[in-house]
Amino acid sequence: MALIVQKYGGSSVADAEKIKNVARRVAKAKNEGNQVVVVVSAMGDTTDDLIGKALEITDHPDLREFDTLLATGEQQSMAFLAMALRAKGYEAISLSGAQAGITTDTVHSQARILKIDPKRIRKELDKGNIVIVAGFQGISKGEKDITTLGRGGSDTTAVALAAGLNAEICQIYTDVEGVYTADPHLIPGVRKLKDIGYEEMLELASYGARVMHNRAVELGELYNVPILVASSFSDSSGTIICKEASMEVKNKARGIVYDTNVSKVTVVSVPDHPGIAAAIFEPLARANISVDTIVQNASINNITDLTFTIARNDLIKAMSIVEPVVKSVGGKQCVTDSKLAKVSIVGTGMQNTPGYAARMFRVLHEQGINIQLITTSEIRITCIISEDRVKDAVQALHQAFELEKET
Amino acid sequence: MALIVQKYGGSSVADAEKIKNVARRVAKAKNEGNQVVVVVSAMGDTTDDLIGKALEITDHPDLREFDTLLATGEQQSMAFLAMALRAKGYEAISLSGAQAGITTDTVHSQARILKIDPKRIRKELDKGNIVIVAGFQGISKGEKDITTLGRGGSDTTAVALAAGLNAEICQIYTDVEGVYTADPHLIPGVRKLKDIGYEEMLELASYGARVMHNRAVELGELYNVPILVASSFSDSSGTIICKEASMEVKNKARGIVYDTNVSKVTVVSVPDHPGIAAAIFEPLARANISVDTIVQNASINNITDLTFTIARNDLIKAMSIVEPVVKSVGGKQCVTDSKLAKVSIVGTGMQNTPGYAARMFRVLHEQGINIQLITTSEIRITCIISEDRVKDAVQALHQAFELEKET
Repeated sequence: MALIVQKYGGSSVADAEKIKNVARRVAKAKNEGNQVVVVVSAMGDTTDDLIGKALEITDHPDLREFDTLLATGEQQSMAFLAMALRAKGYEAISLSGAQAGITTDTVHSQARILKIDPKRIRKELDKGNIVIVAGFQGISKGEKDITTLGRGGSDTTAVALAAGLNAEICQIYTDVEGVYTADPHLIPGVRKLKDIGYEEMLELASYGARVMHNRAVELGELYNVPILVASSFSDSSGTIICKEASMEVKNKARGIVYDTNVSKVTVVSVPDHPGIAAAIFEPLARANISVDTIVQNASINNITDLTFTIARNDLIKAMSIVEPVVKSVGGKQCVTDSKLAKVSIVGTGMQNTPGYAARMFRVLHEQGINIQLITTSEIRITCIISEDRVKDAVQALHQAFELEKET
Repeated sequence: MALIVQKYGGSSVADAEKIKNVARRVAKAKNEGNQVVVVVSAMGDTTDDLIGKALEITDHPDLREFDTLLATGEQQSMAFLAMALRAKGYEAISLSGAQAGITTDTVHSQARILKIDPKRIRKELDKGNIVIVAGFQGISKGEKDITTLGRGGSDTTAVALAAGLNAEICQIYTDVEGVYTADPHLIPGVRKLKDIGYEEMLELASYGARVMHNRAVELGELYNVPILVASSFSDSSGTIICKEASMEVKNKARGIVYDTNVSKVTVVSVPDHPGIAAAIFEPLARANISVDTIVQNASINNITDLTFTIARNDLIKAMSIVEPVVKSVGGKQCVTDSKLAKVSIVGTGMQNTPGYAARMFRVLHEQGINIQLITTSEIRITCIISEDRVKDAVQALHQAFELEKET
């Protein structure tokens, strides 16, 4: 008898019919002889609706109270799913984060899980119950107040429970069919991957693939929990995220991702002396603006240009911070471009294998696409290009690296 | 420094503006130097909406899950109110039933409070916090599952907390201005009572005044908690429910109530032998039908008539049970009348004072109103009359007993 953890996202439990559909899928897993723990998100737009109501009361809701409020969304969907299963004749019980033994730190709205004490879950499983657990929430050490884990928190709950219960697999059911070689909405001919390594998945997610939250993937890697990503609306096989992706990946790029939420700031002609970078980037960090790529040109006569990229919606705020600093250090001006995108190729097979970067640059060159900036990690190469060439770039790279073919 | 418990019902916290209004009232009580504990119901129609959604999933929701679901309504409103108070610069914290130390038995959807452990509430009050507590909910002994107290449960929570905290007063803020001598929507010239005894309030509530739930009044009587009933939308003074109502009540009826949810069943010509009543009323009890008044005529030749009243919406179900029984014991027929109403006069001043009943009958007679049945308690006289004469009856009785005058 295997123990499996399943997680269903908000779109999978959005209304009564969808909850009944989830109940059928859970019942199937139970009928197959498994012990089943199910993690649920809040129904559809519930969380956003609650946030909207809170903002009608105050622009700055107290975070402890905000967590208490948002946690009700998952508490509702877990009760609905337990009702649906019991109505089908299955033994099922719902547990809040607190009841499920999920202890977190006290950082409201962004809490981290400290400990899972699965005593109650084990007891209910041993009684024959299907156990439904509220995702996204826990209880703080000390005061035992309700906390939430931030966006994507239900994925984290599911993987953490799978780790804490030593489950055979954590199945994340969502509204996509799995992980693809590239965005199926952008170009034709993409292929769903059978499996993918944790590191590859992290790079894909960070650079544009919106399949699941990075925290959950990191946790899966840390505790070596195999994670299946599949659709809750079909029976297709999905993608397994695991330690060693299958051997097919040797010497191969595995996926192309892109992100159009990119803008570039170039600070022109600043004096190249120690402290300049700190003077610019420290106030941005204090304003909670994440700076992605930073490039500094070789300096000529102690004058240099400094270029960095940030998320597009941070641009106005960033400029209000950077322009006064640039002036105060004698810089010439700031030039911005907000119509950019990142395109990346990702794959552990690229590690220690020369030639991938060169091939990528050649392909983009052949398409007449200008590369504005380049960044790399061990298993990723990213080029920043004009936003209006993203589709051409992804399509050309997908063909050049033969991603449509299984090896 | 006094400790007061305030309770705001669902209509008082129905939207953001109303929650801000409640925050202003709570802040005022705090500014006056009190320690304040606030009990809130779910916003407006939230509970009914959740019930509706549950019924979309199954006709017979599991009661444990149902409690878990419904408890989210109060958890939301408590968080909203705490946010609103903090946004106004007040220290405030919300506590669920579990966090507030409200332990109940395990009867889901109809739980009774077993114990209040106010440790956390005291701690938060001592820190200077206004403490907002979710009404209607607790946590079961043993499994520590979420329970709810049934309809009117938030009133019960408020009075129980006032008792457990030894509060000076429990203030129930609602959408009525207090307790009136008769229904202000039915007749003109009614008067709001300054105070009323627990027993009188219980009789008024049982016989038609929908001001607050009887369980809460009984609890107030048991622990001698003075209860103020007043409007959350005005500053008028309300009515105090307490042990000794003021001396004005001596020898006086205090209120007239009515209830139109009455139907009558007369079983004609049944043999008058032991066991007949049991044969009729036991199956009704098993079907959860409350029988109110029962009258049996003196028997002639061992044949008698039996009349009883039940709620109107129980009539069809009751007849399907009673008719076969009547036939099987050789009864002649059943006659029903569903267009009846109860009219009652209530007042502890009537106790041990002859003449009230006679006066009531005379007044109804003078109006040409036929009395079909009569029931009494020590402090109440109830006549069952035709529904279409209710208004005339209440108006005439209100005048005859001079209820519009303060003594």
